[in-house]
Amino acid sequence: MRSARAVFDLLTMGRAGVDVYPLEVGVGLEDVTAFGKYLGGSSANVAVAAARYGLSSALVTKTGADPFGRFVRTALAGFGVHTGHVGTSPGLPTPVTFCEIFPPDDFPLYFYRFPKAPDLDIRADELDLDAIRSARILWVTVTGLCQEPSRSATLAALRARDRAGITVLDLDYRPMFWSSREQARSYVGEALDHVTVAVGNLDECDNAVGVRDPREAAKALRAKGISLAVVKQGPAGVLALDDSGEVEVPPLPVDVVNGLGAGDAFGGALCLGLLSGWDTERIIRFANAAGAIVAGQLACSDAMPTRAQVEEKLRENG
Amino acid sequence: MRSARAVFDLLTMGRAGVDVYPLEVGVGLEDVTAFGKYLGGSSANVAVAAARYGLSSALVTKTGADPFGRFVRTALAGFGVHTGHVGTSPGLPTPVTFCEIFPPDDFPLYFYRFPKAPDLDIRADELDLDAIRSARILWVTVTGLCQEPSRSATLAALRARDRAGITVLDLDYRPMFWSSREQARSYVGEALDHVTVAVGNLDECDNAVGVRDPREAAKALRAKGISLAVVKQGPAGVLALDDSGEVEVPPLPVDVVNGLGAGDAFGGALCLGLLSGWDTERIIRFANAAGAIVAGQLACSDAMPTRAQVEEKLRENG
Repeated sequence: MRSARAVFDLLTMGRAGVDVYPLEVGVGLEDVTAFGKYLGGSSANVAVAAARYGLSSALVTKTGADPFGRFVRTALAGFGVHTGHVGTSPGLPTPVTFCEIFPPDDFPLYFYRFPKAPDLDIRADELDLDAIRSARILWVTVTGLCQEPSRSATLAALRARDRAGITVLDLDYRPMFWSSREQARSYVGEALDHVTVAVGNLDECDNAVGVRDPREAAKALRAKGISLAVVKQGPAGVLALDDSGEVEVPPLPVDVVNGLGAGDAFGGALCLGLLSGWDTERIIRFANAAGAIVAGQLACSDAMPTRAQVEEKLRENG
Repeated sequence: MRSARAVFDLLTMGRAGVDVYPLEVGVGLEDVTAFGKYLGGSSANVAVAAARYGLSSALVTKTGADPFGRFVRTALAGFGVHTGHVGTSPGLPTPVTFCEIFPPDDFPLYFYRFPKAPDLDIRADELDLDAIRSARILWVTVTGLCQEPSRSATLAALRARDRAGITVLDLDYRPMFWSSREQARSYVGEALDHVTVAVGNLDECDNAVGVRDPREAAKALRAKGISLAVVKQGPAGVLALDDSGEVEVPPLPVDVVNGLGAGDAFGGALCLGLLSGWDTERIIRFANAAGAIVAGQLACSDAMPTRAQVEEKLRENG
């Protein structure tokens, strides 16, 4: 295992747990008879996606002191993600997430993250600020801001970076984790002051900056001092805005099996592109292809592609 | 569906949810790859066990407003259990329970019953007291006493019966549902004043009356005004004490696959025997055989036997 003083290509912070997903597609939870078990949680998935590209990645999270918590560690390590920053919250069960798979566009999630998710129990005084400062990319999520002590810990990590290097805020907004959209918006605003990249869909951008038009949303994010704003518009493609201007990339054609995890695949690929110094259009094309590959499969973390697989997908759709 | 004014042979009150159980035996949750889905929860299981004998049974419980809650209703109805007293608690997820299956005697449970289980959200003012008073047997559980408003509702149901007919208290004690054993003991004591039958294992009897010796525990339960005390001693068999004296019945030999649910099978059989007017020894022999059948199978509710199956088992072991 990598030593704690190593410099990581990517340090993600946030959700980790167990996805208990139906083995049947198009069948509601009422009728599903069998489930598979997968590593899950957005930040875990992004770390796995990056590791598949050969990046050194680590996840800052916590699990329960239970068999599912041990599974999270074992699975992360199996994917090559460093687990030295995965802590334990005794007394809190490791989160479990069920989903329903109704392709092409309906994938409801059922979260069992009570009484509190261990990944929201991360405390600022537990953070390894050296690792956080030195990581080439730090990746945090809006969900990490929804509850204390994770909110303070996430903001402390952002302040420790102070926009040195690449700091990404995944704008993921899940209403059930918040008391109101206004509450979310206020903390997102605070976080945006400390990051260099923001990525989200239209609703998440609206949540972040109060603007729903993709171009206006990207501009509003840029006005907050963000270097690269990435706005996902679903079937309308991805719009990215940075110092070099605006790029708009259409989605790849894909027979969607399970859309869950595609955004995390996009995120891992975004990190690879940023660290590789690619131009923005190449980054977004690559990330779109990575997302399409995962959307075409049942699993999330288990389906994260290698660089060769993404490049093959791009050639097929060239 | 039976009308709300019907008289039920058995009305159970308490836990219902979804059992997400490994399809692999002897494998920890860390390594399990596939799960099955079953109706679960002790009170649900007892109602199902009774329905398999042709008794009219109903369950008083609540679920979440979610697909798993719909599954609980559909599964109950499929087993012939009346669902007219199954309510809904919007905002609370339907409970999910994972287990590990390490035969012959280690079956840890992992409950996801937060922030509160809907079955603990049953309110006294929601009870159908006519149905509760008229049922030939009312079956309540100690777990129903662990939190409000279920505690007050359970005690209100017991008071409404006032020891008319057969009223059973399942002494089931699960430490994780209580802040202390003393807290549990105090409410169990209050409930015992209103029931006619008490059934539990040695630890549960200790919890109820502070005595661990089986004979002394049965006597202590009888001293609380209980007509029939049933003490399960595991490999040492079952001891029952009533007006006709003491009966001790050895367990049946069984290759245990999953011990979970065996106690609920025992409970359903106990109800059949009590309603049939059998002598105590016949009741306990029959209930032991029913429990053995379920212990020999992976599922709980799905494995509840018919009367013919139990009688066949008794003949095999005659």
